[in-house]
Amino acid sequence: MSASVYFDHNATTPLDPAVLETMLPWLSECFGNPSSRHEYGRAARRAVDDAREKVAAAVGAQPSEVIFLSSGSEANNLFIKGALERLTPGGLAIGATEHSCVVRPAEQMARRGWRLWKLPVGPDGRIDMAACAEIVARKPSLVSVMLANNETGVLQDVSSFAALARRNDCLFHTDAIQALGKIPLDFRALNAAGVNAMALSAHKLGGPKGAAALIFDKRAPIEPLVAGGGHERGLRAGTENVAAIVGFGEACERAARNLSRNAEKTRDLRQRLEKGLIALGAPVFGREAERLPNTVCFAAPGIDGETLVSWLDRAGFAVSSGSACSSDSPEPSHVLLAMGVAPDLARGAVRVSLGASNTTDQVDAFLEAARMTLSQLKKLTAIAVCQ
Amino acid sequence: MSASVYFDHNATTPLDPAVLETMLPWLSECFGNPSSRHEYGRAARRAVDDAREKVAAAVGAQPSEVIFLSSGSEANNLFIKGALERLTPGGLAIGATEHSCVVRPAEQMARRGWRLWKLPVGPDGRIDMAACAEIVARKPSLVSVMLANNETGVLQDVSSFAALARRNDCLFHTDAIQALGKIPLDFRALNAAGVNAMALSAHKLGGPKGAAALIFDKRAPIEPLVAGGGHERGLRAGTENVAAIVGFGEACERAARNLSRNAEKTRDLRQRLEKGLIALGAPVFGREAERLPNTVCFAAPGIDGETLVSWLDRAGFAVSSGSACSSDSPEPSHVLLAMGVAPDLARGAVRVSLGASNTTDQVDAFLEAARMTLSQLKKLTAIAVCQ
Repeated sequence: MSASVYFDHNATTPLDPAVLETMLPWLSECFGNPSSRHEYGRAARRAVDDAREKVAAAVGAQPSEVIFLSSGSEANNLFIKGALERLTPGGLAIGATEHSCVVRPAEQMARRGWRLWKLPVGPDGRIDMAACAEIVARKPSLVSVMLANNETGVLQDVSSFAALARRNDCLFHTDAIQALGKIPLDFRALNAAGVNAMALSAHKLGGPKGAAALIFDKRAPIEPLVAGGGHERGLRAGTENVAAIVGFGEACERAARNLSRNAEKTRDLRQRLEKGLIALGAPVFGREAERLPNTVCFAAPGIDGETLVSWLDRAGFAVSSGSACSSDSPEPSHVLLAMGVAPDLARGAVRVSLGASNTTDQVDAFLEAARMTLSQLKKLTAIAVCQ
Repeated sequence: MSASVYFDHNATTPLDPAVLETMLPWLSECFGNPSSRHEYGRAARRAVDDAREKVAAAVGAQPSEVIFLSSGSEANNLFIKGALERLTPGGLAIGATEHSCVVRPAEQMARRGWRLWKLPVGPDGRIDMAACAEIVARKPSLVSVMLANNETGVLQDVSSFAALARRNDCLFHTDAIQALGKIPLDFRALNAAGVNAMALSAHKLGGPKGAAALIFDKRAPIEPLVAGGGHERGLRAGTENVAAIVGFGEACERAARNLSRNAEKTRDLRQRLEKGLIALGAPVFGREAERLPNTVCFAAPGIDGETLVSWLDRAGFAVSSGSACSSDSPEPSHVLLAMGVAPDLARGAVRVSLGASNTTDQVDAFLEAARMTLSQLKKLTAIAVCQ
């Protein structure tokens, strides 16, 4: 496989070999269906329950608050649509820089008669508290604000927004998919502030693809997206992906244990990277805000982000031009546009998302490759403009 | 792990070690997100595309007709709710013996204003064509009839029902989850007859849990259950579970190759088993109908199915008292009740679902264990009745 330096941990992370080790029995002799009553089934049920305890422990939740799902997108969809489905259509408010798996379900509900508000962000990517208060005063049924942005890493003050929502009798959901494993997460504290539900995903923190969770305090009834058998307390039918769930539990436990060390390491690398990028004349978006320790979103003025990503790929660096999930879209990032970035500059955006296994040498090599690539691309652009 | 004889292949199958082998690279160094544009992502995208071709080839579909999902339950929910969501509420017809992951989404739509008809079955478990014609003449928007029943193995004449549906301008969906790998499946032929969509799942044929597909001719627009990024042609957002999808492709390819041999083998075992059960005075449900080669559903009059399953488990045989997905429900099987089986007898139902690795020795040992267990349980019941 590739010898490229992997700088795209917000898209997905390598599966931790120690996590894979815990999954392997569940991909071989321990193959039971957790709903089966015989020995094979009971072993699988215990494995799912153990994983539920580990995920809960890693984020300060009760095991009974963990609903296992197949992806973070499913978790966001389940709460947003599942909670609203049980209510009379009213209002719904989401942050302007949410991931498409919050935006699209919100838009689906809008087509079903819900009024959709977007909470505006300032140039630093943070939601404006005054504007939020004004919208929340109009009593939307649900407010959804992400903990950490996938493109810029900008953190939102979720507890304050949740408290505001609770004072206005709104349900509050947070997409914590990019936060998990990178910054401390305490659902008990968030819940006390007013957060009812939180979406998590395994493959962003060294776990496998195919496992995710909604952490949910059950104050509101929700309608399942996948209805059928009584799995996951009737909120998500389908045979549990036992191996992936076991891996998710293990990845959470390991991430919680290594969190501060990994955060410190990636923050050091990020600072080194940002210093270098700024020296190259590339602005870093959301730099004024508190951010995830591992994420840098920058642009080289006058250069197309897609082109830069592709040149860097050939130079041996795997980075992205924004959310992997929007990689098919030719539009500039809605996250950067919401922050007031000019469309031309937003089109040049490149995201580097670091992992704990990255090194300073890799960062230095990347800066050198970026410098050379930018200089070549600028020459080409100049020729193109002259012609 | 257990040394029990595994006779519960309709609940889930052991993961074929050769399938696991093909999955392992995607659980280690090949960890990219298929939506990423760099080398890691492109490799993952190719793997998903290859698997799509394999699944399509195994069931006579086009790769562009395959939508990858996380479970068979999700596939059934996606078509039933996704297609109806785009239509004005009208009627909806499903077989009376459908799996709960067809029944529950249909009931959800009924709560949203759809009229729900159930197509009655005869004592052999097969849908009555005259009754079906009468209901379909009332022009439901969608008809859903399973190919093979999970509890009894009874096959439905799906092509005839689909043709009837098409003549009445109804969409037609079939749950083919239990059929895949056990009997030949040809979506092109089914589609020509009138089937628009078909649900499949990987873990019922030696593939991993966590991968499934909806095969869908796209004649009707459907609304995604999980909305977000543009994955799976906008019909299912979320990072693809690459390893599980790769395993699904491989499992389909292998199952198609071995289908007739495996069917013949399990059919021989089943016939041996049924002969023995009938000698023990245990009726076999749906025996008059064409059935899956591997499935036997029987009952011992006067004996509780749950109790029998638990005694057989202790005796070293993993069987089930019906659908694994309904194992929490104390009610007798709705499948058997729909066939007119008396509730008391239905409560005694036990399902044996064989796999190609099972042997005649195992079947003989099971019959001996069943004989002894039934004799002990009958003595206990007699004592209980006398007291």
